[in-house]
Amino acid sequence: MPQLAPHIFDILYQQGVQHAFGIPGDFALTLFDALAASKIEPIVMTHEPCVGFAADAYSRIRGLGLAVVTYSVGGLNMVNAVAGAYAEKSPLVILSGGPGIRERREHDLLHHKVKTFDTQRRVYEEVTLYATTLTDPKTADTKIHRALDYATTFKRPVYLEIPRDLVYAEITESEHLLPPIKRTDPDTLTEAVAETLEMLQQSHSPVIIACVEVHRFGLQEQLLALAEKLGVPVCSTMLGKSVFPEGHPQYIGIYNGEAGDLNVQRTIEESDCVLMLGVFMTDINLGMFTAHLNPSCTVYATSERIAIKHHEYPNVRFEDFINTLLNSPDLPHWNSSSIKTMKPRVAPSLGKISMSGLLYELNQFIDSNTLLVTDVGDTLFAADDIQTQQGTSFLCPAFYASMGFGIPGVIGAQLADPFRRAITLVGDGAFQMTGMELLTAKRLGLNPIVIVINNGSFASLQAMGYQEAAFVKIPTIDYAQLAKVLGGHGFVIHTDTQLQQALNIARDSEIFSILDVHLSPEDISPALQRLSALFAKTLKG
Amino acid sequence: MPQLAPHIFDILYQQGVQHAFGIPGDFALTLFDALAASKIEPIVMTHEPCVGFAADAYSRIRGLGLAVVTYSVGGLNMVNAVAGAYAEKSPLVILSGGPGIRERREHDLLHHKVKTFDTQRRVYEEVTLYATTLTDPKTADTKIHRALDYATTFKRPVYLEIPRDLVYAEITESEHLLPPIKRTDPDTLTEAVAETLEMLQQSHSPVIIACVEVHRFGLQEQLLALAEKLGVPVCSTMLGKSVFPEGHPQYIGIYNGEAGDLNVQRTIEESDCVLMLGVFMTDINLGMFTAHLNPSCTVYATSERIAIKHHEYPNVRFEDFINTLLNSPDLPHWNSSSIKTMKPRVAPSLGKISMSGLLYELNQFIDSNTLLVTDVGDTLFAADDIQTQQGTSFLCPAFYASMGFGIPGVIGAQLADPFRRAITLVGDGAFQMTGMELLTAKRLGLNPIVIVINNGSFASLQAMGYQEAAFVKIPTIDYAQLAKVLGGHGFVIHTDTQLQQALNIARDSEIFSILDVHLSPEDISPALQRLSALFAKTLKG
Repeated sequence: MPQLAPHIFDILYQQGVQHAFGIPGDFALTLFDALAASKIEPIVMTHEPCVGFAADAYSRIRGLGLAVVTYSVGGLNMVNAVAGAYAEKSPLVILSGGPGIRERREHDLLHHKVKTFDTQRRVYEEVTLYATTLTDPKTADTKIHRALDYATTFKRPVYLEIPRDLVYAEITESEHLLPPIKRTDPDTLTEAVAETLEMLQQSHSPVIIACVEVHRFGLQEQLLALAEKLGVPVCSTMLGKSVFPEGHPQYIGIYNGEAGDLNVQRTIEESDCVLMLGVFMTDINLGMFTAHLNPSCTVYATSERIAIKHHEYPNVRFEDFINTLLNSPDLPHWNSSSIKTMKPRVAPSLGKISMSGLLYELNQFIDSNTLLVTDVGDTLFAADDIQTQQGTSFLCPAFYASMGFGIPGVIGAQLADPFRRAITLVGDGAFQMTGMELLTAKRLGLNPIVIVINNGSFASLQAMGYQEAAFVKIPTIDYAQLAKVLGGHGFVIHTDTQLQQALNIARDSEIFSILDVHLSPEDISPALQRLSALFAKTLKG
Repeated sequence: MPQLAPHIFDILYQQGVQHAFGIPGDFALTLFDALAASKIEPIVMTHEPCVGFAADAYSRIRGLGLAVVTYSVGGLNMVNAVAGAYAEKSPLVILSGGPGIRERREHDLLHHKVKTFDTQRRVYEEVTLYATTLTDPKTADTKIHRALDYATTFKRPVYLEIPRDLVYAEITESEHLLPPIKRTDPDTLTEAVAETLEMLQQSHSPVIIACVEVHRFGLQEQLLALAEKLGVPVCSTMLGKSVFPEGHPQYIGIYNGEAGDLNVQRTIEESDCVLMLGVFMTDINLGMFTAHLNPSCTVYATSERIAIKHHEYPNVRFEDFINTLLNSPDLPHWNSSSIKTMKPRVAPSLGKISMSGLLYELNQFIDSNTLLVTDVGDTLFAADDIQTQQGTSFLCPAFYASMGFGIPGVIGAQLADPFRRAITLVGDGAFQMTGMELLTAKRLGLNPIVIVINNGSFASLQAMGYQEAAFVKIPTIDYAQLAKVLGGHGFVIHTDTQLQQALNIARDSEIFSILDVHLSPEDISPALQRLSALFAKTLKG
């Protein structure tokens, strides 16, 4: 008979999980003991918010990830990161240690307890798709499979709590019955695809908007093939950035309503047939709801809903819809030669470095082997004018938008995809939240290039009409010196030449590097310049 | 008519809240705007877990504290700290920004949203006594008063969420009706006190155990007077440390079951009348449940329950019980001259610094003006052998036991009580979680002395039988160098002389200091040596 925790680690390892991010604690010591004895490598980090972000990034790349934490002081310190994984559909498994079954019965006030022994599980019910405590060896296996089925099918986090006296409990293996998950009805699928084809065939100016679910469901190749068969312009959203290769001749840029590039906005909003594939209709994705999308011209397909014009096709899986459409012999084709491709609105700095110059250099530096993670703040908005390459891996939390994702995120991402050259772009505010985690990069022998926008402020808040407010200013650090103390290289960047030199040295370094890029707080990205006006309007709204 | 947020800030200021800890975000910008315009000073920190800890520490000292955060990415990143405030009865008010009422109606996917717009409030229901979103200007005032009544009466955190379009809404002032909170029934009180007096009068060896509620309800002076009138030995618990002056001739030390000092254990467990005042019956307080307390010999009084032997007296408030007992003319008196006072089990280091030598020096250094905050890990257990003085202010999270409390805690505590000399004792693991917050100390001109136990491990976990496990090792930093990068003084401590010199320089410094005390991972405190054996027994279960 298999034992509870070792059984979970076995299954996860078979599904591609080679690393577990976590921090031990006394309620999780036996769980870590079992983890260390498994084939999965424990990655002990410095702080639980970082555990969550790293495991989330790993999940996004591998299709499944694992965080192992202790009870309350561990799990409750990771709620925000897990909420982000939920919001942005990342299939993350959380294993938490917990008080033993016997202890729960015999003692009321065990340390780390909040209201009841169920407090942590109840909190996790609010930020995961499935949360349960494995209290019974007879039902544990069914619950484990249920949790993993949900995580991989719906791309959402799930939570399993393991009482510390059951870590090695022998469990009854159950028949793996698939939960009632949406299946595709063939006739509905046929009808949906036929109507889509008809719309396409009658269209004069079709266009594709591709977003994050294409990535989550691993449909990037199908998207590329579909776009090339059709020969139509393709744009992405901030959240979906890089699902379509940004150097491709059909790629026109990020769609972002009135906040985005004018050419992209016109192409989308004047189209008579918009294929929206895997798009989250969020405020940031839609230029703070300044998007003008006419439902009569749209085919909207996600894992949650397939809709054409104003009617819906239930019981059609997203991946089946995409694959069937792609393989249809009746796909029309347009001539793609006149498509106006993406043009980042950046220019080289001459001398003193600017945000525009930084983005320009970054665009020169990024290649098909780059792994780029951007944090939240102006580093997120700046991504609008970063041009990735075919093959570039790109991650950012563009919907949930929690600061502090960058550094732990790049660590998780680099472990998930170790042969890429990893870069993260973080604001100084975000760095101060989770930058200490570079200690873990050092310990693991990872060498991310960390570009810090050093402007002494929460620039994106400041840009919303709060230029004078003291509460948007933040302390400054000599980040290059800090890099050395934490065990990496540090570079002070005031000019374009210094930036180029630092990037070249950092590229070949075997330890992490911090590039401390000094910018004025007023020097913000083109996208934020436009967005901030819209945000300000909303605030006064 | 008053406006919503300014009204809340006015009431809180009148109740002694002069500082608000927080981090802005776009859903909280107008809230911060109102805060900055109020009499309360905004203290912008680097990371929300620190916001929670600092505000908790402030609340413990001032009797009320305030954290102001943004929606989801702020609030959900502070759940652990608030859970700690709940568990340890700290009256903390959380104000969160939130999406506007109009936005919630009109748009489904606003950034930062998790499942529903209520996700954050639902999470906070699990870790506060009262959590509500102020959606209606007509009922807001009643809810605000209800929240503050609960916080100050029950010493628990409360949560108010303010939609960003209602920050300046004009609200209807309501009659301040007190909520149905427990009142003392005079006859029950008389009977309870009479029975207590009878037990005391018949006792040969009475003793007092005093714990944290004495502090929370501001009854330290009454406790001291009661103890002196009775002339009996007094001990405390880890959570209640310093509620009774530790240099007092009647003070015998910390009671901790089999894990504690033998003299204390015998005195308590052989007593025929134990007055337990404000005691949390937790595992750590009770030596992992190795306490042998005979209910037939105890009078147990807390804010939640008054019990003598095996029967309870409902409807008696803790403070009324203490005050009535204290003022009774029939209190017996014992001769206190034979009481064996507290003897810390420490000795000076000769040359190379040891944990024992560190605690010895600390005991020499602490005076009546010290404000001492200990973090979790061996720094918590070590507190057993730290002897504070009458007047010393002491804080530690000895029940919820979340690492990372020390540095943000000492910042919050120093703002609450600015004329004391603030010291914090933190492990290296805890430092790596929240040490970056020293940037805030620097910015505010605070000068805490930060003593870091640098042993490259989670020593308290290691001591539970995991000496060889890789997952209890942590990265090392040159903390003295780090101090300089963050704007403070740094001292490398290998010997007792270096420690004495560093403490003397740090005492007079106007900026913060880090004392990087190098210890071997095996060199743990006397209390942890004993506790770890008990922990290990629990784990093997």
